[in-house]
Amino acid sequence: MRCEIVAIGTELLLGQIVDTNSSWIGENLALAGIDSVYQTKVGDNFERMEFCIRQALGRSDAVICCGGLGPTQDDITREVIAKVMGVELRRDEAIVDKIRYMFESRNRVMADNNRRQADIPVGAEPIAQMPGTAPGLMCPVGDKVIYAVPGVPHEMRTMVNGTVLPDLQRRSGQTTAIRSRVLRTWGNSESGLAEILADRIDTLDQLGNPTLAFQASGIEGIKVRITAKSPDKATAESVLASEEKLIRGLLGDVIFGVDDESMEVVVINRLRELGLSLGVIEGLTGGVLTARLSEVDAAGGVFKGAMVGDAHSHAGEPGATGEERAIATAKKARDAFGADVGIAVSKPDIASPPPGAPPGLVYLGVVVGDKSYSQSTALPGDRARFRNYAVINLLNFLRKTLSAA
Amino acid sequence: MRCEIVAIGTELLLGQIVDTNSSWIGENLALAGIDSVYQTKVGDNFERMEFCIRQALGRSDAVICCGGLGPTQDDITREVIAKVMGVELRRDEAIVDKIRYMFESRNRVMADNNRRQADIPVGAEPIAQMPGTAPGLMCPVGDKVIYAVPGVPHEMRTMVNGTVLPDLQRRSGQTTAIRSRVLRTWGNSESGLAEILADRIDTLDQLGNPTLAFQASGIEGIKVRITAKSPDKATAESVLASEEKLIRGLLGDVIFGVDDESMEVVVINRLRELGLSLGVIEGLTGGVLTARLSEVDAAGGVFKGAMVGDAHSHAGEPGATGEERAIATAKKARDAFGADVGIAVSKPDIASPPPGAPPGLVYLGVVVGDKSYSQSTALPGDRARFRNYAVINLLNFLRKTLSAA
Repeated sequence: MRCEIVAIGTELLLGQIVDTNSSWIGENLALAGIDSVYQTKVGDNFERMEFCIRQALGRSDAVICCGGLGPTQDDITREVIAKVMGVELRRDEAIVDKIRYMFESRNRVMADNNRRQADIPVGAEPIAQMPGTAPGLMCPVGDKVIYAVPGVPHEMRTMVNGTVLPDLQRRSGQTTAIRSRVLRTWGNSESGLAEILADRIDTLDQLGNPTLAFQASGIEGIKVRITAKSPDKATAESVLASEEKLIRGLLGDVIFGVDDESMEVVVINRLRELGLSLGVIEGLTGGVLTARLSEVDAAGGVFKGAMVGDAHSHAGEPGATGEERAIATAKKARDAFGADVGIAVSKPDIASPPPGAPPGLVYLGVVVGDKSYSQSTALPGDRARFRNYAVINLLNFLRKTLSAA
Repeated sequence: MRCEIVAIGTELLLGQIVDTNSSWIGENLALAGIDSVYQTKVGDNFERMEFCIRQALGRSDAVICCGGLGPTQDDITREVIAKVMGVELRRDEAIVDKIRYMFESRNRVMADNNRRQADIPVGAEPIAQMPGTAPGLMCPVGDKVIYAVPGVPHEMRTMVNGTVLPDLQRRSGQTTAIRSRVLRTWGNSESGLAEILADRIDTLDQLGNPTLAFQASGIEGIKVRITAKSPDKATAESVLASEEKLIRGLLGDVIFGVDDESMEVVVINRLRELGLSLGVIEGLTGGVLTARLSEVDAAGGVFKGAMVGDAHSHAGEPGATGEERAIATAKKARDAFGADVGIAVSKPDIASPPPGAPPGLVYLGVVVGDKSYSQSTALPGDRARFRNYAVINLLNFLRKTLSAA
């Protein structure tokens, strides 16, 4: 089954808005086992919109039109679809009432032009989900179908998930489900991981399902993506779960999270499970660690506070080693915020660097209660990567320390 | 003159990468006075790529193909363009040498498949700018032209700016330049600004050029966009400069920056000009202020440090007013980091809030040397907007304090 996407709006062509809707829809069509081989952007122009929709219907089984369902004169998707269907528009008064109610419940008045949003091509149906004032449309054309959804991403996703994807799957008669899971790793190279997984990859090549793919994502680490294709969603999820268990058995602790879980999400969750709070001092990393942690723990239930600024990165006695300084600074972080755990990153002593120290050498310090741990690691030279790599390595060190404890 | 865009790559259809290239190219075509009325995404499939390119050439004057110029078997843009042109590919050995040299200068070895990237359709020219290993192509087809540029954004932009846009403008015989400038404002509503500018907008409606447009951008404030259309770039820039001066005369201090200048960029620059350093305490804003400032002042030349965490937001005597607490905390911020300026945000005293205090009331504290200033403001209730609005209001308060000083 083939479904095209027509993204409507002159602002898309002018680059005033990036077309993220087509990407999201394309990704979800693929997960539903539906091919999308052409995706087009067109402006708010009747003839060109009509041309695109007719062309899409001519060569594919379905088309999703995104945008042009607003109340202004530029919003002409309804009219164009009616022309393609060869029918009139009929104003649905029940929908007019629904739109009026939405305005009134927010203490606003519906404008006259909002009524246009209730115009439905004869033979089409409004889509059941209506998170905004523009109803979506499901418009059969012979054996084929045109869907119309708003350009507002949240409204579009609600309708695509709620109506369009299920309808496409029903029409295609196939229930093949494709599901993916990403295992996120840090600490081994892509070739290192490939070596460990070499036998499993060979076995999977024989079986054909699931598949494994590597993606090197810079500061996000090396991702191992498992993709399962099964007769239904539940079976696909179950295949993913088995494969994940197997891969974890082979890769172990180098896996820190799944799908969208960043290192800081994982660490904050682990601290929360253990009932521990965290204090931070960051000199070298300029606020990156603080920003990432407070993004995840906005309420500060775990992350009690941070000191940011170079002056703080040199705690410890004169002549102390890098490890000693990192631990002293981590203790200072723990105590400054009355936390259970303190973490810090330090540089080698400029006055007396260790012989043969690589550039980018740093010391990570973690203090949990009264236990202290330190580790050294060498980081890339450019500032952006240095900071992010320092943050991830420090959080990973904390993660592994908490597992061992 | 019409130019279409064909973005090539199966990963685009699957939503693995968002198509930002088409948006950037579309925006820059518009600035060059060139219309782009269709933009299409297609996968790495010979027949469909050929169809898209032929269709684009049939109805427009030029087409920019983006992607598919890599070294792998999936990269077939060169072959497809040769087919459309009705010619063979010819391997350009000088370009092979250039590619080999690029690898060797990074201590790497050119792979065999990189040679394919030197295949040029007979009658086409490589594009002069070659920032990566894939040469772009300029391929005349009768009076029309196909451009091919890589999908790597930096490489694409270099070639589009360096060759494609100038060539399109030469072909179109028109030198109309369109230039925009955005004046960024904070502190007045869109309708308030519109009222102040009402007479000027009427005058501009008569003149036709330049134009003014408002854009309400949430935490980025209200943007006033000036767009000038002139026979050449220099004249357009000069029209923008005059209009900016006029608008600043009307709007005054509510304008904080131009184009991409965020409030923190403006404030850090101003502090740097005045030779002042900055210390921050943020309790309520969870690290957002620190993250934004350290993004701008990575080296810490101005931004000396921050304390993040709720425990710090309550400096000052028991029973102190909100203003007194904000100033005491700002002084603490100044002193903790040996800075010239300290800033902080405080809430009203929970024990004894002022009568009739709106929810979301906060106090901003700014200390410059030994002078103290405070201001109260009410912020939106949801966490994300609360934090960002608090940060922007605090920085804006500092900005205005520095102007007055």
